[in-house]
Amino acid sequence: MEYLRDDIAGMAGYVPGFQPENPDQWIKLNTNENPYPPSPAVLAAIREATGSDLRTYPDAACQAGRVAAANLFGYPVEWTIMANGSDELLNNLIRACVAEGEEVAYLHPSYSYYATLAEVQGAKIRTFPLTEEGEILDFPERYEGRLFFLTSPNAPLGLNWSLDEVAALADRCSGLLVVDEAYADFAGQNCLELVRQKPNVVITRTLSKSYSLAGMRLGFAIARPEIVAALDKIRDHYNLDRLAQVALVAALEDQAYFQECVARICATRERFAAGLTDLGYKVLPSGGNYLFASPPDRNGKRVYDALFSRQILVRYFSDPALAHGLRISIGTDEEMTRTLSAMAEVG
Amino acid sequence: MEYLRDDIAGMAGYVPGFQPENPDQWIKLNTNENPYPPSPAVLAAIREATGSDLRTYPDAACQAGRVAAANLFGYPVEWTIMANGSDELLNNLIRACVAEGEEVAYLHPSYSYYATLAEVQGAKIRTFPLTEEGEILDFPERYEGRLFFLTSPNAPLGLNWSLDEVAALADRCSGLLVVDEAYADFAGQNCLELVRQKPNVVITRTLSKSYSLAGMRLGFAIARPEIVAALDKIRDHYNLDRLAQVALVAALEDQAYFQECVARICATRERFAAGLTDLGYKVLPSGGNYLFASPPDRNGKRVYDALFSRQILVRYFSDPALAHGLRISIGTDEEMTRTLSAMAEVG
Repeated sequence: MEYLRDDIAGMAGYVPGFQPENPDQWIKLNTNENPYPPSPAVLAAIREATGSDLRTYPDAACQAGRVAAANLFGYPVEWTIMANGSDELLNNLIRACVAEGEEVAYLHPSYSYYATLAEVQGAKIRTFPLTEEGEILDFPERYEGRLFFLTSPNAPLGLNWSLDEVAALADRCSGLLVVDEAYADFAGQNCLELVRQKPNVVITRTLSKSYSLAGMRLGFAIARPEIVAALDKIRDHYNLDRLAQVALVAALEDQAYFQECVARICATRERFAAGLTDLGYKVLPSGGNYLFASPPDRNGKRVYDALFSRQILVRYFSDPALAHGLRISIGTDEEMTRTLSAMAEVG
Repeated sequence: MEYLRDDIAGMAGYVPGFQPENPDQWIKLNTNENPYPPSPAVLAAIREATGSDLRTYPDAACQAGRVAAANLFGYPVEWTIMANGSDELLNNLIRACVAEGEEVAYLHPSYSYYATLAEVQGAKIRTFPLTEEGEILDFPERYEGRLFFLTSPNAPLGLNWSLDEVAALADRCSGLLVVDEAYADFAGQNCLELVRQKPNVVITRTLSKSYSLAGMRLGFAIARPEIVAALDKIRDHYNLDRLAQVALVAALEDQAYFQECVARICATRERFAAGLTDLGYKVLPSGGNYLFASPPDRNGKRVYDALFSRQILVRYFSDPALAHGLRISIGTDEEMTRTLSAMAEVG
């Protein structure tokens, strides 16, 4: 197609996780959604804002959301930026830092969308293998690429890195280290304080998982003001609509609901992990709202298919590094009990 | 800042129109918002969708919105794509077609955000002057740049181009001709059929103005399937949240409300234009929900300041091509009557 850039015309595009047509008929554990509804305060705030004001533009700065995040994390407002999902930030961080032909890196396995975003920018892509023991292979003493994405906890494996480990990685990066903490709320630890300590660390977060708001597309970053200023120039000036903005503020302010919800999911995760171990599965320790687990015969596809036929949807990756296992999102206690029974049946 | 690309660190960034702190205390005619609320069907659809489903991801394809647009405009679904405001499409069209160092063009005056988007991409920018008589100056017999944005009707001048004129421009473009029809619903004409006729024409639309949904960030494009496929790879895979998606469908389906609302604004625009002409203003014919008008002394700033002090907010551009006039959004009949009285006072 003569009007398109060759690299865009030639690229494959990202395929999001499968969404069944009648989700109510499934136990849906394939896209790491939260099984609990958003806080009632969020729903009330959206309903309250659904009126004639929708005819007018939202606050371009998303100031109320920034203040809420700043208060929650103890950073100045200038160190925060709000986005239409953390995906928007991952995209704009590449655009801010990586010119055509320059390099972006991430671990394999981790979030494959980094590669799509880098391809769109015309950037080179480099991956470093991650073992199931949490070891990063081939990472140079000094990594000279423009940007390194560290998914922490790792998805899909669930592995965590300690603050010291991430700080050491930051010191070895010449460019930006973006710590993608999409799942950090389930990990009982995070790297937020590194943004203050290291000039090249940025943290991205999403409200899709721990705040039960995948349907609203909300994310944010904590970063140095110079980086926030650059992201501000690149982002759509009205990136968050009015309802998303009120949802964001209400969600961050209802910490009691959030904490209870996260605690329930973590408790269910540990019970489910124990159950899987009893079935003979190898279960990796997880800081996310999912587990990566492999059956004794290391045939992820077999178990995926058997669960699928029972209307239980989990995530199987054909990637050879992952095909021996499954990534299973943590649903309600009841859903996980039924899933465990099905897995016992399947063998 | 060593982590940022030099061109991003050095660029200025776009500044959206001024939003006063207490908009209710102003007659606000500076950002071309619609004075009427969105359709009641839109508000009802949003409220209906505000429930526990927000915990799950939206439809990545935005299929219901595509079907609604396809039905409305008589194009196949594959010729449609939905976006978080038409700004997202303008951005992604540049990314799809223009590599670093290649050229993007638009008319001056028109929407200055094109320049910001091109700068972020590292593209070259070229502008062709547009006179108040609607003449495009210096446009080559064949324009070899990768992408040309034609704002039709033009903002801020309001001028329209006929279908034949736009078709002729398309034939002179080697690259894509993007017709930004943000305001076309107020023009009584549009270029939609050109997408079928010309391989290089794309139409972008927004629901911000004619559908009273600036607060929801909704836009779409009609384009050939190859171009839609490219934009699909570039966009955030979940670019529209659940509430935006239901609002989009409900808005496009309530054509009766939409048409009545647009007709009222057009009628008010014509009355206001006549009133301004009576005051000695030069008023350009407008196909938008705004007028560009210059006072007899051709001092836009003087009138802007005088109206500002009366809590009436209009748009003044310091750009020498526009400083002699003002762009005034069309509000309700009552607002425009009060504005006209104030302008009579101001002289």
